[in-house]
Amino acid sequence: MTNVTVLGAGAWGTAFGQVLADAGNDVTMWAIEPEIVEGIRDHHRNAVRLPVVDRLPDNMTATGDRAEAVRNAEIIVVAIAAQFARVALAEFKGMIPENAIVVSLMKGIERGTNKRMDEVVRESLDLDAAHFAAVSGPNLSKEIAVRQPAATVVGCADLGNAERVARACTTDYFKAFVTTDVIGLEMCGSLKNVVALAVGMARGAGYGENTAAMIETRGLAELTALGEAAGADPKTFAGLAGVGDLIATCGSPLSRNYTFGANLGKGLTPDEAAKVSNGVAEGVPTTAAVVALGERYGMPTPLANAMNRVLEEGISCADMLAQLFDGNITAE
Amino acid sequence: MTNVTVLGAGAWGTAFGQVLADAGNDVTMWAIEPEIVEGIRDHHRNAVRLPVVDRLPDNMTATGDRAEAVRNAEIIVVAIAAQFARVALAEFKGMIPENAIVVSLMKGIERGTNKRMDEVVRESLDLDAAHFAAVSGPNLSKEIAVRQPAATVVGCADLGNAERVARACTTDYFKAFVTTDVIGLEMCGSLKNVVALAVGMARGAGYGENTAAMIETRGLAELTALGEAAGADPKTFAGLAGVGDLIATCGSPLSRNYTFGANLGKGLTPDEAAKVSNGVAEGVPTTAAVVALGERYGMPTPLANAMNRVLEEGISCADMLAQLFDGNITAE
Repeated sequence: MTNVTVLGAGAWGTAFGQVLADAGNDVTMWAIEPEIVEGIRDHHRNAVRLPVVDRLPDNMTATGDRAEAVRNAEIIVVAIAAQFARVALAEFKGMIPENAIVVSLMKGIERGTNKRMDEVVRESLDLDAAHFAAVSGPNLSKEIAVRQPAATVVGCADLGNAERVARACTTDYFKAFVTTDVIGLEMCGSLKNVVALAVGMARGAGYGENTAAMIETRGLAELTALGEAAGADPKTFAGLAGVGDLIATCGSPLSRNYTFGANLGKGLTPDEAAKVSNGVAEGVPTTAAVVALGERYGMPTPLANAMNRVLEEGISCADMLAQLFDGNITAE
Repeated sequence: MTNVTVLGAGAWGTAFGQVLADAGNDVTMWAIEPEIVEGIRDHHRNAVRLPVVDRLPDNMTATGDRAEAVRNAEIIVVAIAAQFARVALAEFKGMIPENAIVVSLMKGIERGTNKRMDEVVRESLDLDAAHFAAVSGPNLSKEIAVRQPAATVVGCADLGNAERVARACTTDYFKAFVTTDVIGLEMCGSLKNVVALAVGMARGAGYGENTAAMIETRGLAELTALGEAAGADPKTFAGLAGVGDLIATCGSPLSRNYTFGANLGKGLTPDEAAKVSNGVAEGVPTTAAVVALGERYGMPTPLANAMNRVLEEGISCADMLAQLFDGNITAE
């Protein structure tokens, strides 16, 4: 049994908190919203963010007090919206117990700095690599929340600490694998949104399984090559956090990137799509980030380039796909 | 412009024939059924097998005469049901023009012999490796038939011949890549049906995207390792013919393996599922073939073993998934 604290009680933070509690740990959720804290602490329910769960486990409680939340924690899970992580974590600086492992559930690239979440978290909390872990895989919150079978990958530079985190979140319905490839894990989780955007666009334009599978496969190859250039292990991209997460994301028509892309595919401009979807999807700034990474590492990024032209110049789905393939016959 | 003949006018043979015609070739379909021959030749329509196409291209005709069909062919495409290929091709032995390339669209393992389609075709027609090519990718016939964007892989031991075939089937909506890894291409196309069966089963049991993505990813890793042991290139499994075809197949709930698996997931026995689906799905004998291949090469095949217990002992979907993962925390 381990004392675990989860910072942030959104859908994924709460569902993962339940996994940790089901695995036998004492779990404390920290949230900034008093009604969420009270709901979890007094009624074992997060009606705001995870209404699908009627009653959270008994060994799961909540607090709104930062110092209290992390004081006795051996594992601290961070599940805050990616773009707010740096600001939110600054408030915890100096409070993290020595030897605690900080685990990020966040996926994204920080706008402005183009930094990965491992960089953001470690910088914010002044953590060494051995005490930072990332969790990434095909893990749609709503399905984990109702305890459907799923698997994930825990990455940490220190394999022993990755295994400690994996043990802490293994239940009969949730299986964790381990890796030391933190960079690959982070890249998979964030960069896949470019592919999700393109697949959503193809679906919105009325195309079916072949087109979606082609975009996913070629997109994955593009991200794998980019990851390898950045020092990631290509095997991570072929695994649960890579192809697995991509399949789950692209198979779920409710995701924000998919919906945003589908609206583009139906002929809306990026501005119109942003209005309809109540904001810009994560895949939009990620597309620019992938193009920039490709330039930095001298790697071709045909899908990201084509999606960039969709977003900047408003080219159609048919033109995007035409641009994806040059006229030559090549090896894959 | 090339003279191309397609043997077999099923849905995929006819749709691929249309691709070849759209690419500018003169295409002759050979079929055993007189009404299909007449329909294509006289009315440019295959109402029996591909009713979704109103009018096939003008440069596409048909004959029921074997010798006439292949006499002037430079490329001969074989699109016959996998289990009947050997018997059907025996009738063409000695008729194949020297230097013609024979291209297989078939996916499957021959029952009884456990042989791949490249072996079956080459044995039946006494062909050398340089004159045999395989085509495999995420290519659902109905979507290709209505000219939705798609990509595929052409494999031939002779790269120049692979490129010849790829050029012959490249259009503005259909893009062909090339490889020399024929074994990998054949293994991807046939073995994926075990994974499709398992994904169908999980869907039938009510599980969502996470579970499907987990099965697809772990299943792909299993087949990749098996392919590598058999001499295939692991990159083929990470490409369009591997992960791409798997995504398209598992995303299409109308496929035979998916439906058969879904009925198992709903609690039907294999016999009951066979009755409901009007026959046993290809994934059933393929499961036994994968288990046998695993034993031959000394590779673990946890998904095929678990599916084998479903088919032989009737274990539930939950037990199948539990068996898929042992209790240890491991690297992916």
